[in-house]
Amino acid sequence: MAGEGKAYTRDTQYIEDRILDDPDARWPVEPGRYRLVAARACPWANRAIIVRRLLGLEDVISMGLCGPTHDENSWTFDLDPGGLDPVLRIPRLKDAYEARLPGYPRGITVPAIVDERSGEVVTNDFAQITEDFATQWTRHHRAGAPDLWPQELREEMDAVNKRVYTEVNNGVYRCGFAGDQQAYDAAYERLFTALDWLEERLATRRYLVGDAITESDVRLFTTLARFDAVYHGHFKCNRRKLTEMPNLWGYARDLFTTPGFGDTIDFTQIKQHYYLVHRDLNPKGIIPDGPDLSVWAEPHDRARLGGTPFGDGTAPGAIPEAERVPTSANPLVGTDGLVH
Amino acid sequence: MAGEGKAYTRDTQYIEDRILDDPDARWPVEPGRYRLVAARACPWANRAIIVRRLLGLEDVISMGLCGPTHDENSWTFDLDPGGLDPVLRIPRLKDAYEARLPGYPRGITVPAIVDERSGEVVTNDFAQITEDFATQWTRHHRAGAPDLWPQELREEMDAVNKRVYTEVNNGVYRCGFAGDQQAYDAAYERLFTALDWLEERLATRRYLVGDAITESDVRLFTTLARFDAVYHGHFKCNRRKLTEMPNLWGYARDLFTTPGFGDTIDFTQIKQHYYLVHRDLNPKGIIPDGPDLSVWAEPHDRARLGGTPFGDGTAPGAIPEAERVPTSANPLVGTDGLVH
Repeated sequence: MAGEGKAYTRDTQYIEDRILDDPDARWPVEPGRYRLVAARACPWANRAIIVRRLLGLEDVISMGLCGPTHDENSWTFDLDPGGLDPVLRIPRLKDAYEARLPGYPRGITVPAIVDERSGEVVTNDFAQITEDFATQWTRHHRAGAPDLWPQELREEMDAVNKRVYTEVNNGVYRCGFAGDQQAYDAAYERLFTALDWLEERLATRRYLVGDAITESDVRLFTTLARFDAVYHGHFKCNRRKLTEMPNLWGYARDLFTTPGFGDTIDFTQIKQHYYLVHRDLNPKGIIPDGPDLSVWAEPHDRARLGGTPFGDGTAPGAIPEAERVPTSANPLVGTDGLVH
Repeated sequence: MAGEGKAYTRDTQYIEDRILDDPDARWPVEPGRYRLVAARACPWANRAIIVRRLLGLEDVISMGLCGPTHDENSWTFDLDPGGLDPVLRIPRLKDAYEARLPGYPRGITVPAIVDERSGEVVTNDFAQITEDFATQWTRHHRAGAPDLWPQELREEMDAVNKRVYTEVNNGVYRCGFAGDQQAYDAAYERLFTALDWLEERLATRRYLVGDAITESDVRLFTTLARFDAVYHGHFKCNRRKLTEMPNLWGYARDLFTTPGFGDTIDFTQIKQHYYLVHRDLNPKGIIPDGPDLSVWAEPHDRARLGGTPFGDGTAPGAIPEAERVPTSANPLVGTDGLVH
């Protein structure tokens, strides 16, 4: 974990296999064969949940969900009956890592794609997972699925994604896990410099890149959705709340009410995860009752900037009953699991 | 500390002597005899700093200031040359408590009034201290000093003060020091119920009671000034920020720019105190760089509600050089110590 001084450095070594649209590949695209293991709490896993739904891959890639908290060992399937994933029949995600690589020495992370046949983790490379959903599974996308990686925007997306990743997605953790005041101060400065850049960029654009949602929006959204609920207080990212950055806040509400985004957000699990797992930051494990989440329902005026969320495509439809976020965990979600 | 279950209960036993406008009293009013020992960090001491200045008692009651942090033993004079209070010649406030009552068994709190002659604490009863400044020291008030306890408002003030004390001034601590989730949840509910009441009350009144500032405003102000900087995150009082409660926020800014209020606020010491002293809540002792304090300078529209801050009186004037808050610790304060 040690980088320069007491700064936080993320472990970014992954099981880097890919599932490819190639019948001769070790892991070929194949409906019904793979299981996405995610957790609603985790922003990196949240990306995969969103993209799977935007592209309509629910019937071809199944999904298992770990509970919001975990011990040092592993995320666990404590939300499932008997504490076992109903497909993989394992209690801990670690078991799937061990099936692939006995004695697996690194962190047990979500998202992970597991081969249902062997029970082995195929990949936990979160950035590659969503890109491959979009580019390798195209034959199985729903009708009207958006193009989340338009060829003509890719260069611009790569640059934006890189800055959003290092400065924002990871930037909030750099603040929260800073080992001393100096590391924290530097991290805070980096984070809000990037948020200033985004605030300005979003003054004249409805979406981060192009005129419709792309993977770039998915990646920023999962951090914004957690900002006031967790990062502002728990990670001391407190120059301003998201609600006090008008363009980012309008952008976040616009996406939140776009099918596929807000309907994946479980604020209860998000808060439980951070406040219960990081006892080094929150020794008593008390979970704040705020913030008031009703503000997510306030109208936004982002449509004035033009653009259409799904471009030439359409919004995703119904959500399978087993995959709905409970209404108690999200102020905008109805009993049908959709955001209203 | 234990009350019902794991709820926080404040120790409210004090040295309850009073300084009276009576030459036969044990502690009679006498210019140049007493020293107010305060700390800019502490909201209870901040009341006394404000009232002393509003009434112009600087020349008759001297002031010593402890540093923002303290150990389990005592507040200390670590800001003074050599770590000694220049008048009392002691390093720790505890020494003045011990001079009065050897083996003093309770907490060493600010504000305390110390008899400069004997070096003994006369009183640490924070509520009585400011009331007596207003009612016993009247012969020594500056010309134009406001009446902070108007006779005709006293009944209403007592009711408001009681609710503000139990639900707000102490309510934020009840949230932060709750021992478990249940105690915290109850404390959060109580606090925001009271803030809703105040938000409504201040919709149609410029001041809490009557048409000019009173002691009631002083008591609420010292909690509001710390709300976003500390209580919102550190004590998990996070339903909304003060900046998101329009009437309370306008009221707080109105008072902040009223001479005697904002010019006593040292945000640096306030944040250092809470984040460094409560290691049980903040183990790493990292002090957040936010919130952005420049928002205190945003214009407010409270004058539309009528009223005049000092009634028939006038605002206090210059601040002695030794008592000025540094500009680095307060975004509105100038090198003359006044809020601009």
